[in-house]
Amino acid sequence: MSKKNQVEVCFTPATYQYFEKKEAIVVVVDILRATSAIVTAFMNGVNKIIPVGTLEEAKAYKAKGFKVAAERDGIVRDFADFGNSPYNFTPKNVGGRDIVYSTTNGTQSIMMSKGSHQVLIGAYLNHQALVDYIVSQERDVIIFCAGWKNKFNLEDSLFAGSLAESLLDHWAFTTQCDSTLASIDLWDAANTDLIDYIDKVAQRHRLAKNGLDDVIEYCHTFNKTNLIPILKENYLIEISNYEEQ
Amino acid sequence: MSKKNQVEVCFTPATYQYFEKKEAIVVVVDILRATSAIVTAFMNGVNKIIPVGTLEEAKAYKAKGFKVAAERDGIVRDFADFGNSPYNFTPKNVGGRDIVYSTTNGTQSIMMSKGSHQVLIGAYLNHQALVDYIVSQERDVIIFCAGWKNKFNLEDSLFAGSLAESLLDHWAFTTQCDSTLASIDLWDAANTDLIDYIDKVAQRHRLAKNGLDDVIEYCHTFNKTNLIPILKENYLIEISNYEEQ
Repeated sequence: MSKKNQVEVCFTPATYQYFEKKEAIVVVVDILRATSAIVTAFMNGVNKIIPVGTLEEAKAYKAKGFKVAAERDGIVRDFADFGNSPYNFTPKNVGGRDIVYSTTNGTQSIMMSKGSHQVLIGAYLNHQALVDYIVSQERDVIIFCAGWKNKFNLEDSLFAGSLAESLLDHWAFTTQCDSTLASIDLWDAANTDLIDYIDKVAQRHRLAKNGLDDVIEYCHTFNKTNLIPILKENYLIEISNYEEQ
Repeated sequence: MSKKNQVEVCFTPATYQYFEKKEAIVVVVDILRATSAIVTAFMNGVNKIIPVGTLEEAKAYKAKGFKVAAERDGIVRDFADFGNSPYNFTPKNVGGRDIVYSTTNGTQSIMMSKGSHQVLIGAYLNHQALVDYIVSQERDVIIFCAGWKNKFNLEDSLFAGSLAESLLDHWAFTTQCDSTLASIDLWDAANTDLIDYIDKVAQRHRLAKNGLDDVIEYCHTFNKTNLIPILKENYLIEISNYEEQ
């Protein structure tokens, strides 16, 4: 048994300040759809992703000639090249490029985590790679759910439960963080039929209203890649490039 | 089927601003131990309870001759007459009196809710009375968990799930608030052996460390009273007195 690393789950950006610590690894999660899209972009050969919190910053980058993905409330902004669906982050759109990205919840959470030891991008798509990497680091972990406009959401919390459970299995101890315990119990209730469970979450209904719910299954697919996007200064790169530098 | 009243669950004071609405009934919940203690005080004949957020306010009331209950982190403050255990709120200590009360999480949440239509004090002890009253009012409800220092806690969220489930049963519809759905799923996972489940929550361990965990079963006992404390201006009274005024 290794030392007792903490596994904490932060349900929304509004409470991140109460979890924040310099020495921790933060895993940012926005399953529907920002972090699933970011992982997909790296699978499809993106060079860097520059996450920006505000649409104004995204516009400024656009004016400088960058390719920009930007949405609010699930809707692509008119100045942007494309929006938040992982299906937009194709090899043709992103391969070899630097992409600027701004979303309703996910990109703000990434920028909020900057003060921590490392900021990783988490999704079901790279679940096992995250577990392997984090376990090798022997550090406290904060799983930071982007939520929805500072409220709790189910799809990010379920992922947090799945990741926390895997980490605690490796570390062979239980946590006393109530939000971690709750996430694991929710995950245990949902995982026998995850897609059926996801049918009830609010964001699924928001996406369906805009015809954007074709990504639900894809965003809940485990282990399509070993790539882990990581924040370096103000942009995301793949972790193997981070370690070389 | 009645009109579609919203049942929303706010997990911590840090997110209350995103739920707040003037026309809603807010049920404040701090099961271990503030709201369980407040309900107990009314069972034991207290006249009014004046909830105060800060210890300075509590001290000022003490100087004016009030009887004061005040604790932080589970520990009674030296200037106070007694602390946060429901067992302190005996007929002898509180019967016929006005009591000033300040706790780590609960009393702040009560004061934060002041701008809503009504602020009720919720506990397992008055669960059915709350359901009956709220259903009769046909209004949106926010179940406001006091949490622990702005973080999520399990014991308040479980109670929120139990209350939300009962309300939604009466109103015969489902909610699209993800935190309400999560609370109900947690409640469904816990309620077959609630006391056993509560054994893992962080606050139970905090209380045990200070020898204060003798109240766990009592605070998870359903329906010992029909009394509902309600906020009127700056103090809590029993709801039957509120309606007469």
